[in-house]
Amino acid sequence: MEAISRRNALGIIGGTILGGTIAATTSFAQVTSQKRFEQSGGPFSWTPHVLDAQECAPIAYDGYWENGWGCAYGAFYSIVGVMGEKHGAPYNSFPFTMLEVGKSGIADFGTICGALLGAASAMALFWGRKERNPMVAELFRWYEQTALPTYDPGSGAKGIPGKIPTSISQSVLCHISVSKWCYETGLTEKSKERSERCARITASVAIKAIEIMNAKQKGSFIAVQADPKSIADCRQCHAPGKESDIFKGVMDCTPCHSGGEHSANKFVNHP
Amino acid sequence: MEAISRRNALGIIGGTILGGTIAATTSFAQVTSQKRFEQSGGPFSWTPHVLDAQECAPIAYDGYWENGWGCAYGAFYSIVGVMGEKHGAPYNSFPFTMLEVGKSGIADFGTICGALLGAASAMALFWGRKERNPMVAELFRWYEQTALPTYDPGSGAKGIPGKIPTSISQSVLCHISVSKWCYETGLTEKSKERSERCARITASVAIKAIEIMNAKQKGSFIAVQADPKSIADCRQCHAPGKESDIFKGVMDCTPCHSGGEHSANKFVNHP
Repeated sequence: MEAISRRNALGIIGGTILGGTIAATTSFAQVTSQKRFEQSGGPFSWTPHVLDAQECAPIAYDGYWENGWGCAYGAFYSIVGVMGEKHGAPYNSFPFTMLEVGKSGIADFGTICGALLGAASAMALFWGRKERNPMVAELFRWYEQTALPTYDPGSGAKGIPGKIPTSISQSVLCHISVSKWCYETGLTEKSKERSERCARITASVAIKAIEIMNAKQKGSFIAVQADPKSIADCRQCHAPGKESDIFKGVMDCTPCHSGGEHSANKFVNHP
Repeated sequence: MEAISRRNALGIIGGTILGGTIAATTSFAQVTSQKRFEQSGGPFSWTPHVLDAQECAPIAYDGYWENGWGCAYGAFYSIVGVMGEKHGAPYNSFPFTMLEVGKSGIADFGTICGALLGAASAMALFWGRKERNPMVAELFRWYEQTALPTYDPGSGAKGIPGKIPTSISQSVLCHISVSKWCYETGLTEKSKERSERCARITASVAIKAIEIMNAKQKGSFIAVQADPKSIADCRQCHAPGKESDIFKGVMDCTPCHSGGEHSANKFVNHP
């Protein structure tokens, strides 16, 4: 996980000749002839830093509101952006607003919760799949099973101050997470309370993600979130070598496969 | 959409003193003191380039297989990586393997199809929400309604050569897209055919995304994909100011809300 390659080091040496200002710029040395699938410094080569979750949480919250860039931007900036503020390169070279794409579950579609996308994407700068997936799963399982939001901005509130109601989403999908919260609270999707809820969830997710990343760096990360019961139950038959290996993913099965009122036929005799 | 800021330009001038090699590196000029929510060049400031979709498609396909980095990496690299190969900075500064996080619907969870995440994320480097969302929606609606994969690698096949079966997902979610294909074809989720299918979908999505991005750059982008009928029907009541504004997102409602066999109660009397 050494972020500075030999090529980068040569860049710094070259830059030093010109003095401090250019030295700062040349630490980003790149080759002009990029080979197929090559990337600066190598895959998953950025070095993580331990962050203060309590310091980063209000940044995630504020990031949600910043120009309306939303949840994925807020969560990602509170991790990678803060590393850029504190440590410079390569973190401050990232085009942070790319993460705006995650707002409202990617371009309003309601797929993955953008806060989760932002946090998981940040983890992927530092750790490859084998190390990262358990960290992402820990975050996602916590999200499924926790009454959110857990974060309260206090006097820093930008939407609605004071307490707002929570709900347990049972899902990492924006559509289910938001819709269930609206259903349970009676508040609308377009309400200011709902935006405030999502801003606070952005900070809640950032805190949890930073705790996981800090533990990983200190060698103390242990996954403690259990898989939902449905995964163990359904995987008894739907798995490689079993009766029916025809499903993909590990989202909690219950929100969509319990025959409940929400997944009933809404196209016939629906009020 | 001018990617080179005044600060970057000064970096290039400084670098030119040292000759070609360092000039290439200093075009990435960064400030060391990054202010809150500041980013190099400004938000959505990268300049897009017109790409050859037929040239990029096999790169997307190969990217899927490259170290198993998967669909989101393949789709993203075939756009931003190719710009890096052809145009250098800032594209070749991107830590491409970050996109591996999208594999299998983000860390195996089965949420957004990673190929769609990769393509939408690439678009977000160049266009802000107002311009980008119709482009992403065009891609996502096409994906929902098209028999996929459409791409055939021919002699470049890395998993299974020849024809493989297609299906219409009706969903942008990896879980539904893959599961429906497995259900309809009888092939398993862990089969090599399924990996081949997803590699080809990665290329199919890259082609469509590049067509959309090229049209946008040429001023000829027009959204032609219609919303699914369910969106129009359900939004008659579930919308701001209507009877019940309690849902989020614009995914096709039918896969999960039609009372079909797949969303029936699987926890009672299930074979």
